[in-house]
Order: sequence, then structure tokens, then C-alpha cells
Amino acid sequence: MPDKIFIHEVGMRDGLQVEKETVPTEIKIKWINEIAESGVDIIQCGSFVHPVKVPAMADTDKIFSHFSKPENKLNDVILSGLVLNEKGLERGVACGVEMFCMGVSASDTHSRKNTGMGTDEAVERIINMAKTAVSSGKSIQVSVQSAFGCGFEGKIPEEKVLGIISEYADAGIENISLADTAGHAYPVQVESMISGVHKINTKLKISCHFHETYGLGIANCYAAYKMGVKYFETAFAGLGGCPFTAKASGNVCTEDLVNMFQRMGLRNDIKTEKFIDISKEAEEFFKREMPGKVYRMGVLAQD
Amino acid sequence: MPDKIFIHEVGMRDGLQVEKETVPTEIKIKWINEIAESGVDIIQCGSFVHPVKVPAMADTDKIFSHFSKPENKLNDVILSGLVLNEKGLERGVACGVEMFCMGVSASDTHSRKNTGMGTDEAVERIINMAKTAVSSGKSIQVSVQSAFGCGFEGKIPEEKVLGIISEYADAGIENISLADTAGHAYPVQVESMISGVHKINTKLKISCHFHETYGLGIANCYAAYKMGVKYFETAFAGLGGCPFTAKASGNVCTEDLVNMFQRMGLRNDIKTEKFIDISKEAEEFFKREMPGKVYRMGVLAQD
Repeated sequence: MPDKIFIHEVGMRDGLQVEKETVPTEIKIKWINEIAESGVDIIQCGSFVHPVKVPAMADTDKIFSHFSKPENKLNDVILSGLVLNEKGLERGVACGVEMFCMGVSASDTHSRKNTGMGTDEAVERIINMAKTAVSSGKSIQVSVQSAFGCGFEGKIPEEKVLGIISEYADAGIENISLADTAGHAYPVQVESMISGVHKINTKLKISCHFHETYGLGIANCYAAYKMGVKYFETAFAGLGGCPFTAKASGNVCTEDLVNMFQRMGLRNDIKTEKFIDISKEAEEFFKREMPGKVYRMGVLAQD
Repeated sequence: MPDKIFIHEVGMRDGLQVEKETVPTEIKIKWINEIAESGVDIIQCGSFVHPVKVPAMADTDKIFSHFSKPENKLNDVILSGLVLNEKGLERGVACGVEMFCMGVSASDTHSRKNTGMGTDEAVERIINMAKTAVSSGKSIQVSVQSAFGCGFEGKIPEEKVLGIISEYADAGIENISLADTAGHAYPVQVESMISGVHKINTKLKISCHFHETYGLGIANCYAAYKMGVKYFETAFAGLGGCPFTAKASGNVCTEDLVNMFQRMGLRNDIKTEKFIDISKEAEEFFKREMPGKVYRMGVLAQD
């Protein structure tokens, strides 16, 4: 089992994008600063989508520009941005994104709704985009969305997901992410999928992105961890979902997952209290109880 | 890994006992009938405690008496009742409890608050009670509460829990339950504990009872299952908690856990829709959203 895990905090993107109420830019900047102080490894600050489609993400360029200024620069944390197309990539390069996240959906229906193209066409395009990003000196992470099932199509064959990852690997992409967009994943399936990915290429750095739609998010993370996965994409307070999928609910909650790993003696350098503060601020801002547990319970003294 | 798991539905006891609003007897009877129709294995119908201490459980004798009548008898399901002392055991025998659940807390502080005696004294007493129940022709399950940590004491040494289980085993008790009363358990700890129990006696039938206090309940169940545990104590809608512990939150949600096992091809005979109905009724009755996920999402078509 890995002796270190890494947290990619995606609440500022996957969390906020589904909220009806847009978080003002200055509050987003405040939250990103607080997340950076927690000691997590990567913060996804937003996505480059059309502002009419996702108004909550309209200020993404502004946010990256802010953190690109030398006086606002965050140390020891990577700022990632999600891009869906070439236009978004251009915007991201211009405003200082450090790591580009992009991906295709293993579900043709979900892929068409998200991008207007089927999975095969989208894979070719995303590989080209990834190459463009790399040639601009950026790091990248390329994902397979709906990797464990789809709200529209139901079951997604494992071979289809592994086929996409093989294409990524053949193109020299090592940083991959398995995203359970619809929240259908269950631990045995996760184990089987990770085992399949290991067979493609043991050098691949696998990140897992689960949702709590059916309450299995943390169980899936633990199953993935036991299979050797080190990278986890989670959202503070358990915010989240995908606006383009049929049914979705929150991401795995960052502080809840970190609490589990800290109980195991891993990543005790991450300041869970910071997340408790931010999650309480989010609760106040959105005026409702959040799905996360630890922010309400407080940090448990570690054994 | 086990090829069959068993569900002990404890919502009618561990779920309802913490609620301020008492569920009327006729609604309890309706819910128990509906739970029985789901096809789960054991239903805990209530506890025999002082009605002033836990008013929500004041009608437990009435409920068992109802189901003891030939015309109301439920087939293919065992009705269990929780007893804390000899008086409760007498009451339970008189009204027709089929399976007696009893236990001690591995935390001295929790034990004293619950029963007025420390752990060692309580173990001796509970073994005697178990023998009395068996000699009355009843089946029994004897638990260790606060087995994975305590809201008052914090860490509980694994050896202390295993010591109690050894005493149970020496007394010929084979049905044991590990209860994470405070919700502190994490998967690696569960694996270690189960492994310790296996070393005492491989014949022991281990049941696990987890709470979602820190969001790790289902992950703990999965870890336990992979260690060979077949029996799980869960509550519909994710109701629950313990009124005598410092901080607690809901039990693992029955339909969410069953959904996980059904995704793995296990226990597809359990009718999850029944639980969705009951959990919706509970939501209406208590006038608040319940912690469970599946009752809101609907049943996912199985692979």
C-alpha cells in the first residue's frame, strides 16, 4: 500500500460549478488561499467553459491571473484548471494555469452532451490538446469520465475505459484520472479497473475521482488506495456534481477522506482544521448543511 | 470473501431511540412489517430499557407481543431485542423476543454511564445473562460496544476488545458483534481487529455495527467483508446514534450498504425498494432529509 497519498482539491471547480449561487471572485480567492494553507498538493481553481453554459466559472481567467502575479503566488501547491476544448486551453495558457486537466467521457451519450462529439473522436482531440499543453511547458492530467457507469447509458464496459487509457499511454500521457462522474462505482469494480490499468503500463500515475451519489465514495477511495492509487480528487465540504449528467451528487469530501488517511498515519501534515473552516464558510455562504461529516464533528485526535 | 452476507436491520431500535419524536406503536408495527417484506434476515424491534430513560422504546414489549400472536407472526425473519440488564431479559422472554442482543462497552467510562459498572464487572454479568437467555431457548448475540474508540476516552486498545471477546468465546458464546458506537473506526483498524478475532476462534460469527459519524461506515463494512465478515447491523435511511455517548451520528444506511453488495452480485433477493419506501416514510414522519443516499437516488440497475 502507498506510504504517501496526494490530494487534488477540486471543490472550487467541481463543487462550485453546480451551485445556483455564484461565489464572488474575492471569496473564491480567499478560499483558494485558505486551501493552499492546508497543505494539499493541487488545487483546481476553475474550468474554462463558456460563461453562459456555466456562469459560476465565468471568472476563472481572473482567478488564475490573480495567482500568477508574483505578490499573490502560492508556494508548494499546484494550481490546476479544467479545459474542455482548444479555446479553453488558449485561455488557460494565457492566464497562467500550471496544470491542465482534460478528459473524455467513456459514455458516448455523456460525451456528446458535454462536447458534441462521441468518445472516439473526443479521444483523438484530447490527445492533441494534451500535446499542445505539454509543448507550452505545462503539466497535464487526462481523465476518463463516466469510467464506472453513466447516468444515461448505465453500465460502461471496463474494456472501453481501458482502451481509452491505452491510447493515452501510447501517446505518452502518464498522468491519468479515473472519474466516476455518475457515482456508480463500487469497490470491487474499482479494484478490477485499477488492476486493468496496471496491466497497461505500471508507470501510469493513477488519480481517482469519486462521488458520493450512492454513498460509496470513500469505500471506493480505500479500495483504490489498497490497489496502489496515490492521487485522490476530492472537494471540501463534499460539495459537487456535474451539471451535464443526469443525476449526480457531491464529491468525496476532502476533510473526511484526509481524516481516514490521517487515522492510518498518512499525510498528518495536511491541516484538516483549515478545511473545517472553509467548509463552515461554505455552509454559511450557501445557507445549507453540507454533506461532509468531519467539519461538523471536529477533528478526531489521532491514535 | 464471503459469498453471502446477512443484514440485521437495527433502525427500529438504534435509529428511533435517539429521536425526540416518538414513533407511535402502530407506525412501528407497519414499518417492521415492511422491513420483513424486504427479505432482510434479522430485525431489531426495540430495546428493554427504562421508559423514562428512553421514552421512544417504551412500547417495546407491546411490539414483541403483537408479533408473537400467531396471526401476526413474521416468517423467514428473526426478531431481535436489545437488553441491558436482567430485568430487561425477563421482560423480553415474557413478550416473545427470538434473539437477544446484549453487550458491554470496552470503554470503562461509557460502560459506567450506560450500566453503572465498569467493563470487567459488566462482562461477567453479561455472560451470565447470555447463559440465562440460552437456557430459556433463545438465540443470542453478545457485543463489544465502543470497540474502535470512545467519545469519552478516545482510543480503546485492541487488546482490551480482544480480551472481552476471548471471555465470550471461553463462555461458549459464538455470535459476537463489534460495535463502533462512537464512529471512530477506520478500515485498517477494522482489518486488524477482525484478524485478531479470527485468532481467538475461527468459529466465531462476527457481526459489524458501524456508524457514519466521520463518514467511514461503508468503507469499514467493505474492509470487514473482505476479512470474511458476513453479518452487518444497519439502519434504514441511515437513522441512528447512541443517546448515552458524547457525540454520535447515524448508522450505516441499510439500503446504501445493500446496494453496494447487490452491485457485487450478493443478496439480490433483498428488495431495496421496500427500504426506499420506509425511508421516505421516515423522512415524512421526522420532517427532515435522512442521511441515506439510495432512497433519494432510486435503485441503480445492476450490472
